[in-house]
Amino acid sequence: MKLRSQYLSSWLKFPVIFALLAAISPLFGQDEAPPYESYEAFAESGGFALFTVNNLWLLISAALVFIMHLGFSCVETGLTQSKNTVNILFKNLFIISIGVVSYAFYGFNAMYPGDFNGFFATGSWFGVSNDDMTLMTDAYASYTWWTDFIFQAMFAATAATIVSGAVAERIKLGSFMVYAALLVTFFYPITGSWQWGGGWLSEKGFYDFAGSSLVHAFGGFAALAAVMVLGPRSGKYLAGGKVKPILGHSMPLAAIGVFLLWLGWYGFNGGSVLSADPLLVSYVFTTTSLAAAAGALAAMIVSWTLLKKPDLSMGLNGVLAGLVGITAGADSISMMGSIFTGLIAGALVVFSIIFFDKIKIDDPVGAISVHGVCGIWGTLAVAIFSDAAGFGIQLIGTLSISAFAFIASFILAMLIKVTIGIRVSADEEAEGLDIGEHGAEAYPDFTPAHKG
Amino acid sequence: MKLRSQYLSSWLKFPVIFALLAAISPLFGQDEAPPYESYEAFAESGGFALFTVNNLWLLISAALVFIMHLGFSCVETGLTQSKNTVNILFKNLFIISIGVVSYAFYGFNAMYPGDFNGFFATGSWFGVSNDDMTLMTDAYASYTWWTDFIFQAMFAATAATIVSGAVAERIKLGSFMVYAALLVTFFYPITGSWQWGGGWLSEKGFYDFAGSSLVHAFGGFAALAAVMVLGPRSGKYLAGGKVKPILGHSMPLAAIGVFLLWLGWYGFNGGSVLSADPLLVSYVFTTTSLAAAAGALAAMIVSWTLLKKPDLSMGLNGVLAGLVGITAGADSISMMGSIFTGLIAGALVVFSIIFFDKIKIDDPVGAISVHGVCGIWGTLAVAIFSDAAGFGIQLIGTLSISAFAFIASFILAMLIKVTIGIRVSADEEAEGLDIGEHGAEAYPDFTPAHKG
Amino acid sequence: MKLRSQYLSSWLKFPVIFALLAAISPLFGQDEAPPYESYEAFAESGGFALFTVNNLWLLISAALVFIMHLGFSCVETGLTQSKNTVNILFKNLFIISIGVVSYAFYGFNAMYPGDFNGFFATGSWFGVSNDDMTLMTDAYASYTWWTDFIFQAMFAATAATIVSGAVAERIKLGSFMVYAALLVTFFYPITGSWQWGGGWLSEKGFYDFAGSSLVHAFGGFAALAAVMVLGPRSGKYLAGGKVKPILGHSMPLAAIGVFLLWLGWYGFNGGSVLSADPLLVSYVFTTTSLAAAAGALAAMIVSWTLLKKPDLSMGLNGVLAGLVGITAGADSISMMGSIFTGLIAGALVVFSIIFFDKIKIDDPVGAISVHGVCGIWGTLAVAIFSDAAGFGIQLIGTLSISAFAFIASFILAMLIKVTIGIRVSADEEAEGLDIGEHGAEAYPDFTPAHKG
Repeated sequence: MKLRSQYLSSWLKFPVIFALLAAISPLFGQDEAPPYESYEAFAESGGFALFTVNNLWLLISAALVFIMHLGFSCVETGLTQSKNTVNILFKNLFIISIGVVSYAFYGFNAMYPGDFNGFFATGSWFGVSNDDMTLMTDAYASYTWWTDFIFQAMFAATAATIVSGAVAERIKLGSFMVYAALLVTFFYPITGSWQWGGGWLSEKGFYDFAGSSLVHAFGGFAALAAVMVLGPRSGKYLAGGKVKPILGHSMPLAAIGVFLLWLGWYGFNGGSVLSADPLLVSYVFTTTSLAAAAGALAAMIVSWTLLKKPDLSMGLNGVLAGLVGITAGADSISMMGSIFTGLIAGALVVFSIIFFDKIKIDDPVGAISVHGVCGIWGTLAVAIFSDAAGFGIQLIGTLSISAFAFIASFILAMLIKVTIGIRVSADEEAEGLDIGEHGAEAYPDFTPAHKG
Repeated sequence: MKLRSQYLSSWLKFPVIFALLAAISPLFGQDEAPPYESYEAFAESGGFALFTVNNLWLLISAALVFIMHLGFSCVETGLTQSKNTVNILFKNLFIISIGVVSYAFYGFNAMYPGDFNGFFATGSWFGVSNDDMTLMTDAYASYTWWTDFIFQAMFAATAATIVSGAVAERIKLGSFMVYAALLVTFFYPITGSWQWGGGWLSEKGFYDFAGSSLVHAFGGFAALAAVMVLGPRSGKYLAGGKVKPILGHSMPLAAIGVFLLWLGWYGFNGGSVLSADPLLVSYVFTTTSLAAAAGALAAMIVSWTLLKKPDLSMGLNGVLAGLVGITAGADSISMMGSIFTGLIAGALVVFSIIFFDKIKIDDPVGAISVHGVCGIWGTLAVAIFSDAAGFGIQLIGTLSISAFAFIASFILAMLIKVTIGIRVSADEEAEGLDIGEHGAEAYPDFTPAHKG
Repeated sequence: MKLRSQYLSSWLKFPVIFALLAAISPLFGQDEAPPYESYEAFAESGGFALFTVNNLWLLISAALVFIMHLGFSCVETGLTQSKNTVNILFKNLFIISIGVVSYAFYGFNAMYPGDFNGFFATGSWFGVSNDDMTLMTDAYASYTWWTDFIFQAMFAATAATIVSGAVAERIKLGSFMVYAALLVTFFYPITGSWQWGGGWLSEKGFYDFAGSSLVHAFGGFAALAAVMVLGPRSGKYLAGGKVKPILGHSMPLAAIGVFLLWLGWYGFNGGSVLSADPLLVSYVFTTTSLAAAAGALAAMIVSWTLLKKPDLSMGLNGVLAGLVGITAGADSISMMGSIFTGLIAGALVVFSIIFFDKIKIDDPVGAISVHGVCGIWGTLAVAIFSDAAGFGIQLIGTLSISAFAFIASFILAMLIKVTIGIRVSADEEAEGLDIGEHGAEAYPDFTPAHKG
């Protein structure tokens, strides 16, 4: 892409991954610009104001990515039946909570190891000594150690949340909790380290700016495997190939969720600049907005044409498709390219949702299509609409990550199935998981129209 | 107002509009401070940290204005019947999507043209060459080209959203989509360019800080014209002058919407400072908060007195009235003036809503009163509670904008009415637009109290 | 705590309270760094960029604390019956509105007086002359006067909001409005001034970073007194010691509320750094996140063990418990300490909710346990997991504040009870306060499943 190569050549010399490693590795870049003697010395230096604004933007981005967890909760509960609402909310609250804590104990260090063999690494975040805080004053870093942790922790938890929607309305609560905790703690950091940890994919020139593959395709294909192990909801696929739609219970909830996800994506993509660089962050805001809008428009048009009616849930999934699509190249795809990326993602998600329903993969919220299929599309779009990476490595990278996620998730889900069981009983599914698992309801004292 | 003249005289020498033009015109200010040679040179300069924080605030403001679209969606769905909920959500998702894309292709350049005859201009945003990126390093600009675009695009889309609420529950979906797309693409930038584009109103000394007239009165009076063409909902105005209230379906949704709008307004007004200037942005946050709070209190008291009951929807509209009211003078009206502006707006909105109901202008959410009437009030309040502009030009300006919006919207709505039709059938209106237009419902699998 | 003493010694020399007083008192620190001659001179100085980002973060934090008011509204309406929803939303809208306005007229100056006897002070904010704006350029301040006001005003209003949930479903609207207005206007600033205004607690070395005691325990124990005056909801405590649970009407609303509160807490705690200092703000974000997550996990586990079912509302209250718990020491408690603080808070809130139900203190949302009990716990946790303060003064401080809040609230509630009455009639309680007080309903035109 011309823009970046013309104006951002200095940025290109220090790709994201270096900046990141610089922030966490005391071995990096020291010969070029020694760290300040102390935090006080840094605070009085001329570079402190810029460091402060860069760091602040990453913290605000972390808060924006956090709110995506509310977005996911709303989309999932909105698009499913009210008898499973408590269960879905409980799962989502659990995921963000276990995600943050487990990432602190294990994931953060496993994903961004100090020394690293390119495939796998372990470490203990809490073992870090306070001396390591000095590296924050490294000339290349634009945020503190804690900022890095909390921003990445919010990302990590999204991977498991994606699965949650696809397996909704029939997975056992305890089994899902085990599955999600293991996925976010142990498996997400592995593929993450391949690229963002400086592993083999980053060495081969793979490009995934904010995680079309590393977060979304990972989550989407983990979801596909889990759904295959779990099977469809009872009554969804009838004899003779008939499909009975199982509708959601609140479109306002689903819409609130999608708008919140769109909002949060400004932090997901915008924060992945890893600084508040004015040109790059504003560029990313614009591509992200255009792709989301184009995704909605395409999904509206395509579904209207195919289904003969303007379909709100398709429009909503079109937004998410556009956002997932632009995530890999939000900093490098051209403006017209971002519109095309969104348009194609929006069209793709409609066909994909219809396709998976046809092959009896029951995904109540369309997570496999939105995150899996459009995650792959977005990764490839980088090669088509920018010159950040070639098509070959993008294809290899996204398929490797998707395949790893699928296989790891499949094995995990199978192990859970044969040990503690993965699916609630048919009776419980019919009655709803809220009563079955929680002995509670989502709307117990809700009586609309008291007067009448 | 003393404060500004005392401390901000340097700011007054470079009014907002100049700063804005400076940001997009390479012809500006060059003799005073030449642009940097390159982005790299700029990034290493002493001014880069301040530029970065200024730019960041505008991007965060764009995200806050974005969330106002969720606010509008929630207010509109909450205050209308559940049988039209899918339709309203679909419309709102469409508006933000088409708004961003069309503003990229046309509106942005039409509203902020490089060369300009003062009344109308066209241009092509995507035609801009990458060389124009250098202007971002202009000494007066405090944000990048992309930041300018995305912030203004979020504003543009609000104008059509305002209409959406007023025409709800009986307008044909396709007709509204055509109407909204044309309004936001072609008509909003015209009045916008009169003031923010450096046109005739700005030359005459009109003052509209963040758009009481240019956004809200524009939207409100466009809504009035559309409602007059469309007519009231069936069954609302009965024989003998009786008015049958058609109530909303979810006050929590309406309240969520109003709180989100209040939140978003910190970006709408705060971002309109066009920098993160500490004194001005904090001043704007404070006037905005006081006006919103005063608007709520006044609407609560006035409606309680008139209707004998404390009315929540009036209180909620009072918040919005206060916010619309302070928008024109949020940076210049004194603190006590901001409270009075809010109090009067909050009282005004109650009388206005009752008045429009009396003359059979059926506005389900009170958008004409909130945005139209209080938009005019806020524009006039600038002349009363600050010395930013005289009463005469404020009156001329706000009436010109309102009249243009009314006439343009009236012609547009009439053209749509006589060609493709504008109103759904009586049967469809009775059954609800969700089934009629979308073949779907908002709460299909919602069954509260499963146990009972 | 080692980290702070090692790296932040310069910060420790100027504790928060000094920075705050410096921001509002022209008598402070002048011998060390004289204020700039004018705002223009300051704006051209090297320190302006850092001042701008510090100030911006406080404004964004104010917006985040504002959104907590929507969070409280959603939690309270979600956890109560739908027949009282309009009433609760009206109360919450009133509190934020009267809170901001009354804090402008009285509370701000009473809490942060220029000259001060250590126990009580009055003043008039609007009496401040424009000359006082110069103090904003004081070398120690990192935000403007208006920023200080709006950030503190958003805090003040939370205290009354906490009470709102505990007294829901049976308090008279007008009585609550009088109670809340007096509490937030006159009583909250008194205990506030003891610590944040430089009063006797701050002199004795009490430490309450962002208000576990000054905001939350204050609100929680004010709530306890109000509930004791008011009595339990009819039908809740039956003869023979039986407790009939009165369930809420929308768990999605409650979950939305808790997620929004978690989001807002990044401003509540993060903004209490009173600058955008990278190390401190990122530290606070991390402790806040870990405590919230640990609180959720502990409440889930403990309630699952005690009640034999995974309880969503306990998990949600666990988040809030963890957040309240970490609030006093978010900048000083170690990372492992923040997890323990959250875990203990999450366990405590479950036992506390069960305990208060056993002694027939009827608190529909668990506000007394979340804010009162965990507010005390968080204040004590500072002494356990950091070296910011000793156990003795923490115990004295938190009990003094809680006792003052309890006694002041008890007297206020009793005065209201014997004069205008405090409780709605039994008939009105049964019918619901929406009809009784407002003549309106929350879901009048809500008809799920139109088709069926």
